[in-house]
Amino acid sequence: MSLIKEISIKSKKRIELIDLTDKVQDIVSKSGIKEGICVVYSPHTTAAVIITENADPSVQKDVLAKLNKMVPANAPEYTHLEGNSDSHIKSAVIGNSRTIIVKDGKLLLGVWEGAMFAEFDGPRIRKLLVSIK
Amino acid sequence: MSLIKEISIKSKKRIELIDLTDKVQDIVSKSGIKEGICVVYSPHTTAAVIITENADPSVQKDVLAKLNKMVPANAPEYTHLEGNSDSHIKSAVIGNSRTIIVKDGKLLLGVWEGAMFAEFDGPRIRKLLVSIK
Amino acid sequence: MSLIKEISIKSKKRIELIDLTDKVQDIVSKSGIKEGICVVYSPHTTAAVIITENADPSVQKDVLAKLNKMVPANAPEYTHLEGNSDSHIKSAVIGNSRTIIVKDGKLLLGVWEGAMFAEFDGPRIRKLLVSIK
Repeated sequence: MSLIKEISIKSKKRIELIDLTDKVQDIVSKSGIKEGICVVYSPHTTAAVIITENADPSVQKDVLAKLNKMVPANAPEYTHLEGNSDSHIKSAVIGNSRTIIVKDGKLLLGVWEGAMFAEFDGPRIRKLLVSIK
Repeated sequence: MSLIKEISIKSKKRIELIDLTDKVQDIVSKSGIKEGICVVYSPHTTAAVIITENADPSVQKDVLAKLNKMVPANAPEYTHLEGNSDSHIKSAVIGNSRTIIVKDGKLLLGVWEGAMFAEFDGPRIRKLLVSIK
Repeated sequence: MSLIKEISIKSKKRIELIDLTDKVQDIVSKSGIKEGICVVYSPHTTAAVIITENADPSVQKDVLAKLNKMVPANAPEYTHLEGNSDSHIKSAVIGNSRTIIVKDGKLLLGVWEGAMFAEFDGPRIRKLLVSIK
């Protein structure tokens, strides 16, 4: 049994994390699949999927601040004319998907974990693909 | 056919790589599953899973040294009060899981590859989830 | 139904991205599998798999330039005697595989996305494993 669904996302900032854990869990619950793996996939070259703490918001703030320091919006080595080289680099390095184990119909996330869409070139209309296998 | 198992881990340092290849292979062998994919998942927001060389220990040493240089324990941009922002950032960027192909009942790792639990905020009692599908 | 295939690669530079999207799609098409997930896996400790834009070549150029700036070929903290510590670090951080959803017999990649083998210690003869489940 398998299933593929799409979540529509409207990002509001250039760079932000959007917690989609509840929406992904909802897809898993409605699928009726009790055990398997769930692939959460961003089909965008300037976004990514990140699993990180969804309790204290300072964690997400620090993750983005450090990412912007490592891969700043502007750098002398960038040649891509659209001006979003940093967005592509962040996406390529972090990866555009994460895989979560499903057991008893639940995403087997840790207590503090949330599945986040990582926008690196917003605001934009985006989508997240969810596949359960 | 699918299976989910847990490996218990006791890390000894703040930051270290713990090779779990044999334990993961053991789970695959006992499962009886001959072909599929194996998801190795850390349900922690301050740890990750890394596949890297398990032969010469200088490789793992260099990976951790560079990670600490890119994401140091202390930095002016960190705001998270628990003092482990770097652990969360390393975990989020590297990713908390890796997927390995299984063939003939064996993890299809390269000759020099090992599957490592990456502790970024130890010492702690941790766990690794292993799902075979 | 599942399938594991191998793609042979001959890299030409020390560091380069090699677009293998068409070859992976060809394996999916020939497999007859219409829906599932496709794991693209590099069994090498000095290479990785990256999904990034395959339209404007300046994007790939910028990704590699920034990676070389973050993890340069030489650094005082490297101790590994083979002289390819940077290759191992890039591989470990980026990850040696990517997972792509398959629907209607097609890789569900975004419009601009390509699946690339990331060579970090070439030129070499390499291989990429493709598993469809």
